[in-house]
Amino acid sequence: ADPQAVADARAHQDRLTKPRGALGVLEEVAVRLAGAAAASPPPIPAPAALAIFAADHGVHAQGVTPWPQEVTQQMVANFLAGGAVANAFAAQVGASVTVVDVGVAADLPPARGLVVDKVAYGTADLSRGPAMTGRQVVAALEAGIAVAGRLVGQGARCLVTGDMGIANTTASAALICAFTGHDAAEATGRGTGVDDETLARKVEIVRRALRVNGLADPAPGMTVAEALRRLAAVGGLEHAAIAGFILGAASLRVPVILDGVIAGSAALAAAALAPDAVDHCVAGHRSAEPGHALALAHLGLRPLVELELRLGEGTGGLLAHPLVCAAVRVMHEVATFDSAGVSEKEA
Amino acid sequence: ADPQAVADARAHQDRLTKPRGALGVLEEVAVRLAGAAAASPPPIPAPAALAIFAADHGVHAQGVTPWPQEVTQQMVANFLAGGAVANAFAAQVGASVTVVDVGVAADLPPARGLVVDKVAYGTADLSRGPAMTGRQVVAALEAGIAVAGRLVGQGARCLVTGDMGIANTTASAALICAFTGHDAAEATGRGTGVDDETLARKVEIVRRALRVNGLADPAPGMTVAEALRRLAAVGGLEHAAIAGFILGAASLRVPVILDGVIAGSAALAAAALAPDAVDHCVAGHRSAEPGHALALAHLGLRPLVELELRLGEGTGGLLAHPLVCAAVRVMHEVATFDSAGVSEKEA
Repeated sequence: ADPQAVADARAHQDRLTKPRGALGVLEEVAVRLAGAAAASPPPIPAPAALAIFAADHGVHAQGVTPWPQEVTQQMVANFLAGGAVANAFAAQVGASVTVVDVGVAADLPPARGLVVDKVAYGTADLSRGPAMTGRQVVAALEAGIAVAGRLVGQGARCLVTGDMGIANTTASAALICAFTGHDAAEATGRGTGVDDETLARKVEIVRRALRVNGLADPAPGMTVAEALRRLAAVGGLEHAAIAGFILGAASLRVPVILDGVIAGSAALAAAALAPDAVDHCVAGHRSAEPGHALALAHLGLRPLVELELRLGEGTGGLLAHPLVCAAVRVMHEVATFDSAGVSEKEA
Repeated sequence: ADPQAVADARAHQDRLTKPRGALGVLEEVAVRLAGAAAASPPPIPAPAALAIFAADHGVHAQGVTPWPQEVTQQMVANFLAGGAVANAFAAQVGASVTVVDVGVAADLPPARGLVVDKVAYGTADLSRGPAMTGRQVVAALEAGIAVAGRLVGQGARCLVTGDMGIANTTASAALICAFTGHDAAEATGRGTGVDDETLARKVEIVRRALRVNGLADPAPGMTVAEALRRLAAVGGLEHAAIAGFILGAASLRVPVILDGVIAGSAALAAAALAPDAVDHCVAGHRSAEPGHALALAHLGLRPLVELELRLGEGTGGLLAHPLVCAAVRVMHEVATFDSAGVSEKEA
């Protein structure tokens, strides 16, 4: 983050016609984006573009979810037809929707709004060895970087992460453990609503994945090679692509709003690859998944929306977009005490 | 609330292409609005109209705030010139802004967007006797009802409460004590940022106001006459007008998004006058004022935005508007499992 822009943004906030600090967390968001953009005020982060990265997961075979794997491709069709919650929320906030097939376990018919950059027909089972090869993880990262570049090239000034992949909260939990050192039982949740028995199995699968892949020990001061190895070992293709999407946004100095636990776990990988990338991230919301709070704490991000959402798709990130815009808009449009002739409080 | 519409809305939510309950608090908002509108899905609550009720307070003389009383009228001018945070947030969410002078301690020049319905040049000092006469409190309520009717007549499908009045968090704290039975020390906060000494004085003033006005005892099963007496005793003219605004919205079956502690305390009065009015209220946010959480708990409302805002003006209510729209939009636009051909989870 640019220290001069941060200082300028803080000073500007204090001159506006409101008590100091009265906008709470939103003042910090605006200052953060100023630092990331190296400009105070930072550019208005609109229009927004949502990218939903879709992929399947070999670990689905372990019974970690009651949803059939086919739901991934069925929901992709639903996104492309405009019928999902993410579409409704995108319409509400004026965001475009792009679906990116980086690893769905089926060939999808071409459609408007669908980008096919398929790295594999789903990952291998992370509980039996690495989910991705080294070549696959790099290809998925590059797919995400490319989408960020394309959307910004088309005029987007804010990116929003989205995901679709039945079983992907299992991979997320494993990533959170692998990058933060938390135990599987702390990081693993009920996803889209699994019962007690399935949750216990899910925790055991995450624990096995960490053991099988040699990720039990936390790795402070992780090298880029080790970060890539961990992402490949227990991540999903959509996680890797979202990590690339974040890196792409950061390199273009465009803010990226993170959705839920999938994005949070992907951001851990992005941060391990390039720590400054986090400066460009805004945590859109905190999901009901316990691992998400752990990931956000590790990243030092405070979520804007806390409404017990547990849907993914980018829904929580989209809801945060008007809040982020409002935070920045204040710096462009609100009068100062001097300019408005408003008295300040007595010392 | 209409029980059939509530049941229909819940059943509809469960057929949509998302795991049950995956939209968390937003599902409850949509169901609540269906019940209030007696229709499932409920109408899209847009466009929104913000009404900022402005008034001054006799208790200002007791040194409860470091801000000069003149700031009330200076900020009204700032709203009318479009330079306040409320204006920026209203622009962000596409809401109109109307300023209503129900009790500013000065004659304001006519301006576009200003409604003058002045009941008095500020209230009397609530720590020395009733802040308003019985006639004044009714006139302020009627002013609020009239504004609600006018804005809905002009096409608003969602109302948002706003307020401006230096010293009005003192009156809010007293109202919260008078309607919930909480102690002054629990309900009184730092408002726009008072120091420890001023906070202690503020608590003492609230306590004295309750004693002087005979409001120390909670009054379960309060009559309408007693509710009016309590509102008149320690409320502000803007509190009474906002209570009327809520009653007006409810009678027109239009949802009203409550801003912060001023609106929360006014809603307690509205609920005491007409309990069903609360069905039409959505708590926009939870402010940093401790009394606000007490008021919301008493009303049974869960706030949508929790970002430590402490500005008033309607800012927290405006930020919630896209979230409320998104919640309702889901019920209009999202496909069902059947219509989208998406498999449901295995039992």
